[in-house]
Amino acid sequence: MSTRPVEIGGSLVDLAVQAVRNHIRDHDLKVGDSLPGEGQFATSLGVSRAVMREAFGALAALRLLDVGNGRRARVGAIDGSVMGASLEHAVTTSQISVADVWDVRRTLEVRIAALAAERRSAEQAEQILALAEAMVRDQGDMARVTAHDTAFHQVLAAATGNVLFAQIVRSFAPQMEVAVPKAWETRHAQEEKAGILSLHRRIARAIADGDSGNAAAAMEAHFDASIGDHLR
Amino acid sequence: MSTRPVEIGGSLVDLAVQAVRNHIRDHDLKVGDSLPGEGQFATSLGVSRAVMREAFGALAALRLLDVGNGRRARVGAIDGSVMGASLEHAVTTSQISVADVWDVRRTLEVRIAALAAERRSAEQAEQILALAEAMVRDQGDMARVTAHDTAFHQVLAAATGNVLFAQIVRSFAPQMEVAVPKAWETRHAQEEKAGILSLHRRIARAIADGDSGNAAAAMEAHFDASIGDHLR
Repeated sequence: MSTRPVEIGGSLVDLAVQAVRNHIRDHDLKVGDSLPGEGQFATSLGVSRAVMREAFGALAALRLLDVGNGRRARVGAIDGSVMGASLEHAVTTSQISVADVWDVRRTLEVRIAALAAERRSAEQAEQILALAEAMVRDQGDMARVTAHDTAFHQVLAAATGNVLFAQIVRSFAPQMEVAVPKAWETRHAQEEKAGILSLHRRIARAIADGDSGNAAAAMEAHFDASIGDHLR
Repeated sequence: MSTRPVEIGGSLVDLAVQAVRNHIRDHDLKVGDSLPGEGQFATSLGVSRAVMREAFGALAALRLLDVGNGRRARVGAIDGSVMGASLEHAVTTSQISVADVWDVRRTLEVRIAALAAERRSAEQAEQILALAEAMVRDQGDMARVTAHDTAFHQVLAAATGNVLFAQIVRSFAPQMEVAVPKAWETRHAQEEKAGILSLHRRIARAIADGDSGNAAAAMEAHFDASIGDHLR
C-alpha cells in the first residue's frame, strides 16, 4: 500500500534518527546550532535521502530539531507541546482520565508553589500578584479568566528556575483551556468563585512573602477546592 | 535546498496533522483502531500525498499513530518514550540539568509511593518486595541492580493505577540507565550501598503494609540519600 521505503519505526529510519541524536551529543551542540543537511547525513550513513528525510521529519515532530523553511535544521528547544500532544491524545482516546491528569498536576503544582516561594525574582512576584488580581477583575469573562489562570501557573513554574517543571506545566495548558471554563461554569454560587479567586490571591501572597510552606498549603487547598468541579 | 513541498511545522502539514487528530476525536477512536489511509485523507483534505505522508510521519513520531509495515495506521498507545526523547535531548544539550530532572522525579516518586501503598494489588506488592530483595542479592552486578531499580520504580508507578504517572516514570528510564550505575560507582563505602538497599526494602515493606505515610517518607529518605551522588 505504502510507497514509503521504510516506515517510521523501521530499522533504517530508527538508525538515522539515532545517528542525528548522536551527532548532536558528540559535537556538544546547543539550542540553535545548525546541523549538516539531510544529504550529508544520507551519504555518511549510506542510507537513501528518503530515509533521511523521514528521520528529520520525526526529529522535527519531537522538537529535537527545528526545521524552518528552506534553511538548515537547527537543534530544537525543549517544548511542552510534545508532551501536551501525548497527553491530549491519551485523554481523547480514554487511555488516561481527567482525574489522572489532575492528580499529576496537583503533585507537581504543590512542589512548584513551594519552590517558587523560595526562588522567584521580585519581578515574578509582582507578575504573580498581578495575575491573581486580574482573575478577580475579569471574573465575568471566562476567556480572560482562563488566560490569566494559565499564565498564573506558568509564571509560578518558571519561577522555580527548573525548566522541566515549566515545560510539564506548559503541556497541561491545552487541558486547562477546556477544564477551566468547564469548572467555572459549574460554579454557580458566587461564594464558590470567590473562594477559588481568594486561593489564587493567597498563593500569590505566600510566594511574594517567600513563605514556601504556606504557598504549598494554599496550592493544595486550591486543588482540593477545584477537584470536585473537574470530576463532577 | 529542500525538495520537500512543505516543511514540518508548515501550515499545510500542521493542518493535515490536526485533521487526523480531529478524525480520531470525532470518531471516538481508541487504541488499536485503524484509520483511513494517507491517500483518503489527502483527497478529502485536498492536499498532496506528500503532505499527508509527512503528517503521518509526524504523528507516528509522537506515537499518536502506530504505523506498521504496509498495514493501515492505527491509533497509538501513550508511550513514555516520547517524553523520554525530549528529556534526554534537553539534558544532552544542557537545557535542563540532572538536578532539575532529579527534583521533578522526586516530586512524582513521593506521591507515587503514597498512592502505590493505597492501591497496589497483592501481586504488585509481591513484585515490589521481590525487586527490593533482588537488588540486595545482585548488588555486585551493576547492570542487574540498575535493571531491578528501574523495574522497582516502574512497578510502583503502575501500582498507582494512574497511567500518566507510569508513563512519566518510564520517560525517566533512559536517564536512570546512566545515573544509577554512576551513583553506584561513587558509593565506595559498603555501608552507603547498604543504606540505599535498605531504603528500597523499607519502601517495599510500607507499600505491602498499605502504609502510605511511611511509603512516602521512605521514598523521600531514598531521594535525600541519593541526591548527593547525582550532583557530585
